[in-house]
Amino acid sequence: MPEVDSSPADATVPLGNNEDLDILAKVDAMLESYVASLDDRSRKVVLFKSPEEISTIFSEEACDLSLEDGEPVSESRILSACEATLALSVRTGHPHFFNQLIGRADVTGIAGEMLVAATNGSAYTYEVAPVFLLIEQEVINKTLDLVGFSRDTAEGLTVPGGSMSNLYALQTARYYKFPEVKTRGIFAIGGEPVAYCSAGAHYSYMKAAHVVGIGSDNMVEIPMDSRGRMRADLLESQVAQDIAHGKKPFFVGATAGTTVWGTEAGAFDDLIALRRVCDKFGLWLHVDGAWGGAVLLSPKYKEELLAGVDMVDSFCWNPHKMVGAPLQCSIFTHNKGRGLLQACNGTCAAYLFQKEKNYASYDKGDWTIQCGRKPDGFKIWLAWKRLGDEGIRLRVEHGIKLAKYAADEIVKSSTGKSRFAGKFILHHDPEYANVCFWYLPPCLSDLKLLEGLNDEEAAKLSKVTPYIKDKMQREGLAMITFTGPYNFFRWTFSSPRNVGYDDVDIVLDDIDRIGRDF
Amino acid sequence: MPEVDSSPADATVPLGNNEDLDILAKVDAMLESYVASLDDRSRKVVLFKSPEEISTIFSEEACDLSLEDGEPVSESRILSACEATLALSVRTGHPHFFNQLIGRADVTGIAGEMLVAATNGSAYTYEVAPVFLLIEQEVINKTLDLVGFSRDTAEGLTVPGGSMSNLYALQTARYYKFPEVKTRGIFAIGGEPVAYCSAGAHYSYMKAAHVVGIGSDNMVEIPMDSRGRMRADLLESQVAQDIAHGKKPFFVGATAGTTVWGTEAGAFDDLIALRRVCDKFGLWLHVDGAWGGAVLLSPKYKEELLAGVDMVDSFCWNPHKMVGAPLQCSIFTHNKGRGLLQACNGTCAAYLFQKEKNYASYDKGDWTIQCGRKPDGFKIWLAWKRLGDEGIRLRVEHGIKLAKYAADEIVKSSTGKSRFAGKFILHHDPEYANVCFWYLPPCLSDLKLLEGLNDEEAAKLSKVTPYIKDKMQREGLAMITFTGPYNFFRWTFSSPRNVGYDDVDIVLDDIDRIGRDF
Repeated sequence: MPEVDSSPADATVPLGNNEDLDILAKVDAMLESYVASLDDRSRKVVLFKSPEEISTIFSEEACDLSLEDGEPVSESRILSACEATLALSVRTGHPHFFNQLIGRADVTGIAGEMLVAATNGSAYTYEVAPVFLLIEQEVINKTLDLVGFSRDTAEGLTVPGGSMSNLYALQTARYYKFPEVKTRGIFAIGGEPVAYCSAGAHYSYMKAAHVVGIGSDNMVEIPMDSRGRMRADLLESQVAQDIAHGKKPFFVGATAGTTVWGTEAGAFDDLIALRRVCDKFGLWLHVDGAWGGAVLLSPKYKEELLAGVDMVDSFCWNPHKMVGAPLQCSIFTHNKGRGLLQACNGTCAAYLFQKEKNYASYDKGDWTIQCGRKPDGFKIWLAWKRLGDEGIRLRVEHGIKLAKYAADEIVKSSTGKSRFAGKFILHHDPEYANVCFWYLPPCLSDLKLLEGLNDEEAAKLSKVTPYIKDKMQREGLAMITFTGPYNFFRWTFSSPRNVGYDDVDIVLDDIDRIGRDF
Repeated sequence: MPEVDSSPADATVPLGNNEDLDILAKVDAMLESYVASLDDRSRKVVLFKSPEEISTIFSEEACDLSLEDGEPVSESRILSACEATLALSVRTGHPHFFNQLIGRADVTGIAGEMLVAATNGSAYTYEVAPVFLLIEQEVINKTLDLVGFSRDTAEGLTVPGGSMSNLYALQTARYYKFPEVKTRGIFAIGGEPVAYCSAGAHYSYMKAAHVVGIGSDNMVEIPMDSRGRMRADLLESQVAQDIAHGKKPFFVGATAGTTVWGTEAGAFDDLIALRRVCDKFGLWLHVDGAWGGAVLLSPKYKEELLAGVDMVDSFCWNPHKMVGAPLQCSIFTHNKGRGLLQACNGTCAAYLFQKEKNYASYDKGDWTIQCGRKPDGFKIWLAWKRLGDEGIRLRVEHGIKLAKYAADEIVKSSTGKSRFAGKFILHHDPEYANVCFWYLPPCLSDLKLLEGLNDEEAAKLSKVTPYIKDKMQREGLAMITFTGPYNFFRWTFSSPRNVGYDDVDIVLDDIDRIGRDF
């Protein structure tokens, strides 16, 4: 052991490296057992507790949540804290967790994420992360091939989440058209830059518009058609009008798989129609495929939902959705020339990106708006190697099948042909893996949703889903989020691997059992 | 098992959940052994290979790096790929890895990161991440207490890296002064917003200036004094001049611990002097403590280096530096009123942040520019609980001691009082844990650095460090980065726990042995 410090404190204060190897081994064993239990349907999705209860449990069984006293705690308390965290956290890997677009992480992917944690690598330079950078590039290459971008003109990065990918897209597109912004700011453009997305797009477009300084008013929401797609004709007239008013349109943010808003949750914009408008006005066409991009792996659905994707300018998708890479894993790619990301974001920091270094051309740190960057490519690569294209295709298509099965059951109910006669109302036919629906309790059984509701009915219906959700949460049953008009349930099959049709039946039964008491 | 799919492919294609539990157990065992070996000085810091060699090794020993064929690979190949990744990756946890501001991750922190991977949680809502959100808040609270911010007026978030923290700071400060930017964009301000940082600040300030649309020309670099601190007098005159020219100053980005640039790497800006200027003109004062913020845990160095920190408007630090939390872990806090982050970044996305939910007031997703967000607070909390304030204090102070020891050895050399007589030249006295120096090989032994170099000497000296670095990398010896005038070595003690004074001696001996052949 090297000399560390001669102060007497050394003997009693844990310094936390190899003396804690035992903690690592014991936590590993705990996690293996936890992951093995994720398919166990007899467990609750969440052991629901209030913040005060959680705080009390930690204090009594492990250690205070607070760090205020600054005292070190024993190994056994650390282990108890991990046990308590596992026991009180939502089991996102439970087959009945449908609340978010994440869910059960792939086991091989989890192993990959753990390896990254143990090596503590950072994907900026070849010098520090040779394997992680090469592997990230293979994940990017595979994405480029699937999208249909040429490796000669396209490039990409893994970034921390889909919102960051959309921010990268907006930033890259702006630099491409107005490189002067990099040094002189937006003012140099000589007019207000304007971007567009559909009214059903993810809120991260609005957030990004604020961040990049154009403001959310300049991220113009274009209305959708009846299938939830951005209206290309309205986009065209809006752009023409903005140009006539001296504005500077530069970016269209399309969506492949809307998350919930609009009349068709799970909708895919018509990329061919949008490309035509973008070409006419010289606009960058980005596709937010955070949720729907996984259909790249399904030739059938790719053709049906992503036609024209090879002609867009940038594309992102999140393998932590549907494909099951552990959070966080988003891939941003563009096809407007290699070197663009470095030109856009680079500062050539001399202390990191020395040209004299070996293989410095492999460095990616200067392409990003970050500095240190977690090598998120590794876990998706490892999982992908294990699953193969075919394994991922099966997952994606199974997720879509589950959604269609759930929608069918709901439709059967509305038409009276099921045990739920009349109790479930489907909001719309799913194109992808989102199913939006209401439950009508006995006291609302006469409701004619399609004919419009009066204020009293609307208020009452809006309370049904939160009521059911609350009871299900407290019982530890399936978690499904709600939103939209009169708070419909939004059921997403984002982690389809361990979900079966019988799970769909169980969930509908539970909703009915609880909802009928509303 | 639920029904998954009736296609025959199911039988042969791994779908990757519980059937792969064996992979998880075996990778865990591999990682425990890897982490246990990190203190082993007989191992190389890196087994240096070219991209082509790495590719060949993977193909021969595990599987192709490429994902092109899309074929699934066997469990044993997955395990071999993990072995190869560990063998060919840089051992950032090796006692002789000094290349970056990251290094040996704390073992308990690694266990925490692994737990997060297994649960696949996302820190947006209480509903989905009750424990992780409560624990993140405790890490924030502890930071607020250490900085001296009131919990009644301050709030914060963990974000993916220090560059993101500086971006959050710029974004929050702009919203605070010009809330109209959120909807109408920068144009609404009626003048160009201007921000300031020192010439020695991290490049992420420049990147952020581009991202937020003000441009890098409007992130004005203020010259430093002889100790590397931003010149408050020059800041004051610059701001006054900018105001006179119709510009709109709003932000000063200070630095606590410069990374390398300027004459005093590791320098801490004088926050009291900067506060005075900021108060005079109504500017937001942010502190980038990504590197130096760890001195919050050392009362001695906090007083010496961070005086006045309680009076700044926002502060960030990266526990993945110095404190040893696994990458990535940055904490952003501000003291300008609770609710500001949500007001600034919120879009009130109805599908995530339903007011009807239980304990929705604990949700943080609407405070961020992200959507899904990895619960990075957990790993630092777990490590902190184990180490206690005192364990972290010992680490930080030991890092500073190591730097001073290395600097002393180098100074002894320059004054002829060591075995290295005249061979090492210190660039400046370290204030913190960075040591910058040159090695003078025999052919340059007469060089009088202080008197200035002619072009030929400058060119020759600039080649010495890259030469030594390359040889050391190929031998798998200590990794230290280089930069600055004539490429000096920048030696950082960012992971001091398993580094001793004898390690410093070994590194200097190696540099001398290799450098004398230049």
